[in-house]
Amino acid sequence: MNKLFKVADQQMNHLLTASGKQLKRLFITISDKQGTPPGTMVYTGKQKAEPLRISVMDFDAATLAEQSDAATEACLALKDTATVSWINVTGLNDTEAVARIGKGFGIHPLVLEDILHTTQRPKLEDLGDYLFLVVRMLFVEPGAREIHSEQISFILTKHCLITFQERAGDVFDEIRDRLRQSHGRIRKMGPDYLLYALMDAIVDNYFVILEKTGEQIEGIEQALMENPNSLLLNELYAQKRELLYIRKAIWPLREAIGGLERGESNLLSAKISAYLRDLYDHTIQVIDTVETFRDMLSGVQDLYLSSMGHKTNQVMQVLTIIATIFIPLTFVAGIYGMNFEHMPELGWKYSYPVFWVVMVTLSLGMLYGFRRMKWF
Amino acid sequence: MNKLFKVADQQMNHLLTASGKQLKRLFITISDKQGTPPGTMVYTGKQKAEPLRISVMDFDAATLAEQSDAATEACLALKDTATVSWINVTGLNDTEAVARIGKGFGIHPLVLEDILHTTQRPKLEDLGDYLFLVVRMLFVEPGAREIHSEQISFILTKHCLITFQERAGDVFDEIRDRLRQSHGRIRKMGPDYLLYALMDAIVDNYFVILEKTGEQIEGIEQALMENPNSLLLNELYAQKRELLYIRKAIWPLREAIGGLERGESNLLSAKISAYLRDLYDHTIQVIDTVETFRDMLSGVQDLYLSSMGHKTNQVMQVLTIIATIFIPLTFVAGIYGMNFEHMPELGWKYSYPVFWVVMVTLSLGMLYGFRRMKWF
Amino acid sequence: MNKLFKVADQQMNHLLTASGKQLKRLFITISDKQGTPPGTMVYTGKQKAEPLRISVMDFDAATLAEQSDAATEACLALKDTATVSWINVTGLNDTEAVARIGKGFGIHPLVLEDILHTTQRPKLEDLGDYLFLVVRMLFVEPGAREIHSEQISFILTKHCLITFQERAGDVFDEIRDRLRQSHGRIRKMGPDYLLYALMDAIVDNYFVILEKTGEQIEGIEQALMENPNSLLLNELYAQKRELLYIRKAIWPLREAIGGLERGESNLLSAKISAYLRDLYDHTIQVIDTVETFRDMLSGVQDLYLSSMGHKTNQVMQVLTIIATIFIPLTFVAGIYGMNFEHMPELGWKYSYPVFWVVMVTLSLGMLYGFRRMKWF
Amino acid sequence: MNKLFKVADQQMNHLLTASGKQLKRLFITISDKQGTPPGTMVYTGKQKAEPLRISVMDFDAATLAEQSDAATEACLALKDTATVSWINVTGLNDTEAVARIGKGFGIHPLVLEDILHTTQRPKLEDLGDYLFLVVRMLFVEPGAREIHSEQISFILTKHCLITFQERAGDVFDEIRDRLRQSHGRIRKMGPDYLLYALMDAIVDNYFVILEKTGEQIEGIEQALMENPNSLLLNELYAQKRELLYIRKAIWPLREAIGGLERGESNLLSAKISAYLRDLYDHTIQVIDTVETFRDMLSGVQDLYLSSMGHKTNQVMQVLTIIATIFIPLTFVAGIYGMNFEHMPELGWKYSYPVFWVVMVTLSLGMLYGFRRMKWF
Amino acid sequence: MNKLFKVADQQMNHLLTASGKQLKRLFITISDKQGTPPGTMVYTGKQKAEPLRISVMDFDAATLAEQSDAATEACLALKDTATVSWINVTGLNDTEAVARIGKGFGIHPLVLEDILHTTQRPKLEDLGDYLFLVVRMLFVEPGAREIHSEQISFILTKHCLITFQERAGDVFDEIRDRLRQSHGRIRKMGPDYLLYALMDAIVDNYFVILEKTGEQIEGIEQALMENPNSLLLNELYAQKRELLYIRKAIWPLREAIGGLERGESNLLSAKISAYLRDLYDHTIQVIDTVETFRDMLSGVQDLYLSSMGHKTNQVMQVLTIIATIFIPLTFVAGIYGMNFEHMPELGWKYSYPVFWVVMVTLSLGMLYGFRRMKWF
Repeated sequence: MNKLFKVADQQMNHLLTASGKQLKRLFITISDKQGTPPGTMVYTGKQKAEPLRISVMDFDAATLAEQSDAATEACLALKDTATVSWINVTGLNDTEAVARIGKGFGIHPLVLEDILHTTQRPKLEDLGDYLFLVVRMLFVEPGAREIHSEQISFILTKHCLITFQERAGDVFDEIRDRLRQSHGRIRKMGPDYLLYALMDAIVDNYFVILEKTGEQIEGIEQALMENPNSLLLNELYAQKRELLYIRKAIWPLREAIGGLERGESNLLSAKISAYLRDLYDHTIQVIDTVETFRDMLSGVQDLYLSSMGHKTNQVMQVLTIIATIFIPLTFVAGIYGMNFEHMPELGWKYSYPVFWVVMVTLSLGMLYGFRRMKWF
Repeated sequence: MNKLFKVADQQMNHLLTASGKQLKRLFITISDKQGTPPGTMVYTGKQKAEPLRISVMDFDAATLAEQSDAATEACLALKDTATVSWINVTGLNDTEAVARIGKGFGIHPLVLEDILHTTQRPKLEDLGDYLFLVVRMLFVEPGAREIHSEQISFILTKHCLITFQERAGDVFDEIRDRLRQSHGRIRKMGPDYLLYALMDAIVDNYFVILEKTGEQIEGIEQALMENPNSLLLNELYAQKRELLYIRKAIWPLREAIGGLERGESNLLSAKISAYLRDLYDHTIQVIDTVETFRDMLSGVQDLYLSSMGHKTNQVMQVLTIIATIFIPLTFVAGIYGMNFEHMPELGWKYSYPVFWVVMVTLSLGMLYGFRRMKWF
Repeated sequence: MNKLFKVADQQMNHLLTASGKQLKRLFITISDKQGTPPGTMVYTGKQKAEPLRISVMDFDAATLAEQSDAATEACLALKDTATVSWINVTGLNDTEAVARIGKGFGIHPLVLEDILHTTQRPKLEDLGDYLFLVVRMLFVEPGAREIHSEQISFILTKHCLITFQERAGDVFDEIRDRLRQSHGRIRKMGPDYLLYALMDAIVDNYFVILEKTGEQIEGIEQALMENPNSLLLNELYAQKRELLYIRKAIWPLREAIGGLERGESNLLSAKISAYLRDLYDHTIQVIDTVETFRDMLSGVQDLYLSSMGHKTNQVMQVLTIIATIFIPLTFVAGIYGMNFEHMPELGWKYSYPVFWVVMVTLSLGMLYGFRRMKWF
Repeated sequence: MNKLFKVADQQMNHLLTASGKQLKRLFITISDKQGTPPGTMVYTGKQKAEPLRISVMDFDAATLAEQSDAATEACLALKDTATVSWINVTGLNDTEAVARIGKGFGIHPLVLEDILHTTQRPKLEDLGDYLFLVVRMLFVEPGAREIHSEQISFILTKHCLITFQERAGDVFDEIRDRLRQSHGRIRKMGPDYLLYALMDAIVDNYFVILEKTGEQIEGIEQALMENPNSLLLNELYAQKRELLYIRKAIWPLREAIGGLERGESNLLSAKISAYLRDLYDHTIQVIDTVETFRDMLSGVQDLYLSSMGHKTNQVMQVLTIIATIFIPLTFVAGIYGMNFEHMPELGWKYSYPVFWVVMVTLSLGMLYGFRRMKWF
Repeated sequence: MNKLFKVADQQMNHLLTASGKQLKRLFITISDKQGTPPGTMVYTGKQKAEPLRISVMDFDAATLAEQSDAATEACLALKDTATVSWINVTGLNDTEAVARIGKGFGIHPLVLEDILHTTQRPKLEDLGDYLFLVVRMLFVEPGAREIHSEQISFILTKHCLITFQERAGDVFDEIRDRLRQSHGRIRKMGPDYLLYALMDAIVDNYFVILEKTGEQIEGIEQALMENPNSLLLNELYAQKRELLYIRKAIWPLREAIGGLERGESNLLSAKISAYLRDLYDHTIQVIDTVETFRDMLSGVQDLYLSSMGHKTNQVMQVLTIIATIFIPLTFVAGIYGMNFEHMPELGWKYSYPVFWVVMVTLSLGMLYGFRRMKWF
């Protein structure tokens, strides 16, 4: 029993350490920059060693120019060209380079601070010349078990879309392939459609994460049916925490995408609004699913507690039946084990058989009583 | 006891597998198409083998033409005729045919995607030339035990109502009969009234489902009164999950029908608004009932837990009464079973009767004490 | 113990059957008419044998004409007379007669359907020429124990107030008496004031019901203080369910009366608004009281659970104290009951007194330890 | 143990009877007047024997005339004088006198009904010529332990403030003193400021009540730390109920004072609005504190339940350790107490010491096992 | 066991006394001034001995004049100078001096009362000529363990920012350093930016507090994994209470800063709005984090309760297994310890070995049964 308990502890520790680390990343890094003046650019993320790399895809319906490691200056040159430019910055450690890009595109210092300060709440800000959108990208890298969480910031200008990621590796490869194929809607439309396509990829990935979560919840459930134990309880708790985490990342997103959809900015073309409404619907669906999973988890927890209560009750009943039957019998046996000199029954001839008859009758009577009380 | 437990497990597994499958269908199919460009038409439902079939009812107050297996082109011909046309498409596996209908009626690709993507959240979209309404149809097929859940999409244009179902078999037979009878309001009014009539049939079926659920809850309750056991707990849990499921399907419907009722579209005639308000009232009533059932279920669960607690307490009391009375008596019997050479009581003449008197007195005293403490 | 349990079960069954019947009436009758076209007049209530009877009170400040069993045609004649007419229809089984009245007063088929369909959610509808108000009347008939619940529909036209009840017997006798006395405000004002007076009588009766409920909750509480048992738990549960039921009937009423008060209809005179605000205040107060009762009931339930937990704990402590003291003593007595040939203590002279001293010392030591742990 | 339980019961009964009486006064008196026409003046309070007394303070910045037992007619004479008149009516049993005052000041019959009907929900009504405000005054009389609760109604006209109390004794003595001193803001301003000052005194008294409640909660908490018992549980429950009661009195006040602050009535001067905002802030703070206390109480309850669970667990562990060690030992002792003729061990020379060694080893081994399982 | 419990009690008492004191300070000091006329200046805080001290920083982009102990008159002289003046008042015991400053700057008496009355709810008031903002500053002094809580009031006029603190020591040192360095945005902008900078420092400190809280919650969690005991339960409870406290301080802040951001006052320049939106975002993030921590704590509490339930169950199972196996065996041994003269088995030759074989078989059978019931 002890050994089992140990194993459960270790597994739980593992689970919680994993999700604990993520939570730490989400909650507690603002204080790193506490005490600096507002607008100071300090990178607060954990990918300190990631080098800054800029990849550029510059395209219109006819042409596509791709650069995998562009210089800052090359990016700035694309600012006012009629082609659509997607400037993807990975690695935010080099704050100087980020500042240079920011300055070149006329981005407000507070926005740059938010980009570097990678524990932002998802939000949308319309700053006139450009839109600023921060979201959280969640994905599971192929082969890995842990959810990777990362802040992505979007700057949408008239001709460009700039994205800032903490490190290389994202959910956009499929979009890149679509861009490389000359046909398709994405090449014919502006940077606003590109923004939508990238956001769509991120939201679609939430469904992948949730599908995984849903399967795990069902697994816990099934296992619980077969044998409720404390190991499952800990898994349950870890899932609960993970949902809390996902929820914190997704809830504010609704508001941000809702803001986009209402579409007052002239950076968003009229055609895009149907797509944004679709995106908004998906976000609502993600939130619905998260809430349903939370309800399911708390249902599973109730079931666990009730099952445990039922089991305790059963154990108690077994104990009580056994003890209640045998304790009086043992008492009677004890009586005739006494060494009093004057105990007439001891000498009677049929004492022993009578003793057995009484014992068996008593036991059966008690069993009958317990059955009437529906104890078994 | 063990056997009983086994049976409960099996039944529970059955219950949960059944509802588990449904939930799976509802939650986790979006990822099937994850990675495809927006507007790509991929059917995500489970009825992969269902052939596409189009049935048409074309009518005005005087005439009715019915086709049970129409060609796509025949449908498109009905687009602008003055008669009201109900085009019912079942089986969404043939995405090409759906696309052809969509193109013919000028439907936006994202709308077509939503039609095929059969885990949509109920919603209403006003796209100017046509209204798009998605709802979830729940019904129990005659003879079956399981709730069948299916997405139904409505496209309402000036002269036509197009409905898309995943498979044949629905709750509309009664409406078809009414159409076939030449008299009645339904033949005299436009496609908006037909939409209302179909929606009304769907919402009325929710009441049938809920009636069934209500009866099951009452059954659980009654059974719980007679003998609270873990089997009922699992039934309770399965009901809770089913309600969660129904709720997820119905909540957003309120908003959609509310949107219809507010009636800003010119596709909805003025006469229809009284009917839509009625429909809205019914939806609210469905939601009310679901919420009340949830409250009732959590009340039943509380009752179960309290009953279990009470039972455990009773079992404990029996154990304690028996143990507390006999353990001291057994001790005394044990004393006079000792083999010390110098135990004066052993030789006394009335030791044995005195022993019995003391034992009985002690027992009665304890019983009296327990009664005063209201233990029985 | 078993007997007590039986009694509790019976009482509980009684309680729940009673309230279960009511709930059935409220929730599950819509499906009776499922499958019929909208606007079809089917009476869904349970008073199938109640004959239709129309009583009329036609009055102005000076005169009062009363008919206890009027013909349909007589009612229609009152439609446009300057006197105020209160037409009270009891027994909705005769749908034809209801239809005739409806047609005569120009009432929409859907409204008539709602009148017959007696599980409506309370609501107000302004249909231009007339107001339609549905409420639920709750009352306890003198001598009866059960709450009687019935839908009452009001049709307010310029000169008439038509009320539809499922059966004879209501809370309006007091109003009738006031009408018969020639003095009083009620004779001088229009049908809108009459509507208010009737609604006021209904809402006042909610207070009577709630007063009864409040007394029962206090009774449960008091009984719980004296001896917490499972009987009370079931009473508690029955009360909870009854409140759920009352709440479902009253919550939507707030909205309906709020709509009346805002008073945009020209069927409501300016003078009436102060009275309607008063009525609205009363409704809010009813809702407040229901909510407070719910809070109180859940408080009582918490108290019950805590008391049970406390009692279990106490029982456990008694068991543990007794067992922990006597089990070691019994072991020692068992040792000296062994039949080893070589046990030096058995032959010693003072073994037996020493044995007693050791036993008593050990017991007292344990008791002292338990007291320090605050076990008693 | 039994005695302790008795005491707890008595104390609890006392506590609950006390608060039960209050609740009764609040909830269940409307039915006293059920069946009377609206606007009928029936006093529903409990102070039936309190004689009606009118005290008047008539003042401007320069003069102050005070009458401790004024006649009704004297009051009416003050209606239109330029001086500010505070007419305080205590004892509402004499409904005729109240009606005469009401008529003199032109007060609507429904308002007079609300004044006499002393279980009103706090509310504000603007009736054009006068404002009507109902609040609940809570205070602890010096030396008393119980909270006294009483409805106070305010009628604010252009030159007068009329207050209606159920009985003499209130929280306004301090205001009277301020009025008697010729200096101070209160003498220079109108009846609206006087209304504010009185309301401020009432709200300030809520803080006194809450301070007392807060101290009691802390007391329960501290006592719980030292020794969790069922007495505290009952205190906790009584506090919870008291808070429920205070909350019901205060919540609607927020709305009423908010209405005053928004200040659309021309009976409220522009200068007063800063004071009313201050009053509104205090009300919000009272509500905040009540909510925090509720959270604290439910926290204390959780702590109690967890402590009880912990204690039960500890008791169980002690029982299990003792029983698990001694039950097998007793079995072994029982074996060698058997009287079989052929038991070789009985005759061996070192059987007895070996028996002891085995017993001690077994016990120590079990203890070691329990420690490893962290049972103590 | 007892000793451990003692230690837990002491630690808990310590924890609760600490946080209890803070709560006392927050909740229960309004009654100190109960009974005084509105606008009376009474300092209700606890820092009665703190002397009043005024420090002034008067600056524009070019110059900075700093006074560490200025006279009241010197402050008033700065009122209308074009330079930005930050007048920081610490120690509110000297109400006369505060009144003099208030009068000099034309501050309303109710505002001054709120400044001295140091248990205000955070709020913003726009009084035309000046803005009044009250917030709660939370910080941990270097080396200390306890959270220090203090009300800070801001008065923003056209050229000055006046801050009132209860005692010296705050979170503004970093701002002072920035002011002293001639470069930086803070020197070039007006008092509105200074207000923002100070507020930003306060909100940033909330994150520091929350980071500490988060670490403690994780510590409790980790400890709980290793060994769930009642000590942790008390820590958990203390954390819950602390969060309740922080929440009460922060929730209203959102509204106040939201009011600032919407920026209708002309005391706030257009440039400042981006900064205020940033501040508002931070406040939302603080609230989000507090709510997430509350969810986490209640998750930890659930885990604790489930773990305890699991442990109790395990203990029960061990007890039941041991008791159920040995009680029947002991009964059998008791039988053959009886002294009946006629017990044939006693004389049989192989009775003793057969006895052992039966005992061992029985035990193994029971163990097998328990394993099948999954008891270990």
